[in-house]
Amino acid sequence: MTDDKLDLPDEDAREDEDYSLDRDLVHEVLDAVEAEDASRLDALLEPLHAADIADLLEQIGPGDRGELVRLWSSEIDGEILSELDEGVRAEVIAELPSDVLREAVRDLYTDDVVDLVEDLEEADQRTILDALEATDRVAVEQALSYPEYSAGRLMQRELVTAPEHWTVGQAIDFLRAQDELPEQFYHVILVDPRMKPVGYVTLGKVLSARRAVPLAEISEDSFRTIRVTQPDKDVAYAFNQYHLISAPVVDEDDRLVGVITIDDAMAVLDEEHEEDILRLAGVGDESSLSDTVIEATKGRALWLFVNLLTAILASVVIDLFSDTIQTLVALAVLMPIVASMGGNAGTQTMTVAVRALATRDLTAQNAWRVIRREVAVGAINGLAFGLLMSIIAGFWFGVPMLAVVIGAAMLMTLIAAALGGIVIPMALERLKIDPALASGPFVTTVTDVVGFFAFLGLASVVLL
Amino acid sequence: MTDDKLDLPDEDAREDEDYSLDRDLVHEVLDAVEAEDASRLDALLEPLHAADIADLLEQIGPGDRGELVRLWSSEIDGEILSELDEGVRAEVIAELPSDVLREAVRDLYTDDVVDLVEDLEEADQRTILDALEATDRVAVEQALSYPEYSAGRLMQRELVTAPEHWTVGQAIDFLRAQDELPEQFYHVILVDPRMKPVGYVTLGKVLSARRAVPLAEISEDSFRTIRVTQPDKDVAYAFNQYHLISAPVVDEDDRLVGVITIDDAMAVLDEEHEEDILRLAGVGDESSLSDTVIEATKGRALWLFVNLLTAILASVVIDLFSDTIQTLVALAVLMPIVASMGGNAGTQTMTVAVRALATRDLTAQNAWRVIRREVAVGAINGLAFGLLMSIIAGFWFGVPMLAVVIGAAMLMTLIAAALGGIVIPMALERLKIDPALASGPFVTTVTDVVGFFAFLGLASVVLL
Repeated sequence: MTDDKLDLPDEDAREDEDYSLDRDLVHEVLDAVEAEDASRLDALLEPLHAADIADLLEQIGPGDRGELVRLWSSEIDGEILSELDEGVRAEVIAELPSDVLREAVRDLYTDDVVDLVEDLEEADQRTILDALEATDRVAVEQALSYPEYSAGRLMQRELVTAPEHWTVGQAIDFLRAQDELPEQFYHVILVDPRMKPVGYVTLGKVLSARRAVPLAEISEDSFRTIRVTQPDKDVAYAFNQYHLISAPVVDEDDRLVGVITIDDAMAVLDEEHEEDILRLAGVGDESSLSDTVIEATKGRALWLFVNLLTAILASVVIDLFSDTIQTLVALAVLMPIVASMGGNAGTQTMTVAVRALATRDLTAQNAWRVIRREVAVGAINGLAFGLLMSIIAGFWFGVPMLAVVIGAAMLMTLIAAALGGIVIPMALERLKIDPALASGPFVTTVTDVVGFFAFLGLASVVLL
Repeated sequence: MTDDKLDLPDEDAREDEDYSLDRDLVHEVLDAVEAEDASRLDALLEPLHAADIADLLEQIGPGDRGELVRLWSSEIDGEILSELDEGVRAEVIAELPSDVLREAVRDLYTDDVVDLVEDLEEADQRTILDALEATDRVAVEQALSYPEYSAGRLMQRELVTAPEHWTVGQAIDFLRAQDELPEQFYHVILVDPRMKPVGYVTLGKVLSARRAVPLAEISEDSFRTIRVTQPDKDVAYAFNQYHLISAPVVDEDDRLVGVITIDDAMAVLDEEHEEDILRLAGVGDESSLSDTVIEATKGRALWLFVNLLTAILASVVIDLFSDTIQTLVALAVLMPIVASMGGNAGTQTMTVAVRALATRDLTAQNAWRVIRREVAVGAINGLAFGLLMSIIAGFWFGVPMLAVVIGAAMLMTLIAAALGGIVIPMALERLKIDPALASGPFVTTVTDVVGFFAFLGLASVVLL
């Protein structure tokens, strides 16, 4: 009814649909950038969550992004930087005046600073480390001394501990007497005199138990410690498997050095899955939509090259039978069907195997049963699709023996695909090679070579 | 030094390596099952986490599983049932005496019961519902009235709330006066008199603030409510995007009806990723290693059938050029290379697009830029691999024009693959069809048809 409504975004801007950025909002932001209207820009962006501002920065083009950062640089804080993709982050950091950058990183917890700097180039890393206060810098440098993708990189050092013999009352008095407690904490970690963690108590239990109750009596059953050198993907697995909310991190002497909380584990789980999906598809696993053409091209080319070798190998097999094809050109028409079905069946089994290995569901214990099951599945589908394709080929080319050959070749190829799809990822895992990354080319080679060999080989024997 | 060591598993049985089940332990369990030694079995299993016992049950064969459940049925509790895969869960429930089952489900929170029963057959569902106390049964049935995969199914009803005007001191006194608080809670939800949630306060802040401080002053900035009908995958996205630890769930009148915690959101995120990976590979998304041969065969057959149609379409294209192939059989040898490279490049782009759509990174805003980038990547790789393949084909067959034809066809196919790989998932998303599930066959069709048509078509024009 009224025209002067303020159409500023509210916190719920994303909630109406499915959390994708509001299209009109992005347009208004770009208009404000073009008009160099800093106060309008501020009114539009200020209500947004840092994660949404980061998404917006990633989705607009590099030119607009640079302009926006210049106009709004004073408001870009550590949280926004933390949320950005690596490539865009480096770009934004390069644009920021050094005093803004200093402010931004000083706001962050040390684990977030670690997350921020670990992927940066040496020089950019130095810029940020120099911006920190001395104590924080030491903490960050210490964290960076742990292996990449280890629990040590993931943990926060801000801890709330209590001696194992304390009572609830002592813990409450202690906590309430603290000047400063970590922003986010959910448990009190019980430690022995050597600082070895022996259990933990949720704050909910501290609040609901009587003062005289010993903390040890209300500690959680599912207590687990994480070694500081443990790979972060194993940490994420443990959180998901055992429903942990937070877990103490210990060094090689079992002494408490930090704590990992579930939100960090969830972020790792998300990245690990993302990497697995991209690796299975043969895309460089660090790829993101904000990569440049050159970066993206390089990321894809390696896999295409490996695939070219595989495809050439398949062609060599075909070449062995070129006389046969010359005699019956229908073979050339039909042969891609056998290879394609084999490739698909192999990918299906391989994907199931790669995932089951990642979730520790496929083990030495059940390997034989799973292999037998996969081969049985391959055989049944091979029979079904072999029969179907026999009928189709029979009607299409009217050569009965051709129909028999394609049916038999389909069965053989689908069994080989099942076998290759399960055995190759398991063998790679044994050899400590990431099965998500390396299985594809091997499985394709097996299905292509077996597919063409079975079909053309049988044809040359039976038909000629 | 001593031979009488007790090699019982300890809680850390899985921690030494990477959390996979200890192989010796599984063997010992199977030995105990075979010897029908219930006390030995109990000694082996009792120290394990419910999630590990569930994994063990999934990994052993159906015969051993039935035997184990019969021997150890009195110890199988709700937690173990919750952790099992659907298929195995139904099998175990069928084995359990009704009094054990009743005990097991009465132990659980209502949200876990919902999780347990929602995938069961009607009859099994009834068995469990009947085992519940009346109030819990009502709560579970109410949760089941919400759509599947909605926030209403995911939330727990046990809540800790406080009026928005309370102080820290009032909240502490209230919490400490409660007889029973939920097992796991991390926030106090502030509500207005209509039970509309207006903010939340972490327990850590409650414990560290002075008694006189109003709760509203120390409430979290990142407060977000979830609608009860919201799809659970959007809930998981929101938790990951906004680093939520817990979030109040509201009905259509904005009234508080429950709360979702991050551990549930993490489980959903994990399942969603799993589904996406399996869908991209054309495997039924409910598939698990404990599926029978028949279930697994069905799950794979649909996709293989769709692929067969695609492959036949490609063969029809080849058939159009059978005279050309007859004249120069080298075409039959080389043509799979073009199709294979196209298929791989298409899968790469498609996977990037499907993931970027799922993470809301690919939007109407940046669609054109991403399409341009992908086509540029396709063109560059097309030029590079076209050139490489030209040289190889030239040396292999010694027909210069054949070398030119395969180079040009490779370039055309890789550009088509890039275009199809990005445009098809976006179009499916627009049409509200899951791009992870449906993109594959369309993209393969494009790359096969374009690949064979370009190569054989060019050959028939240039060479004959």
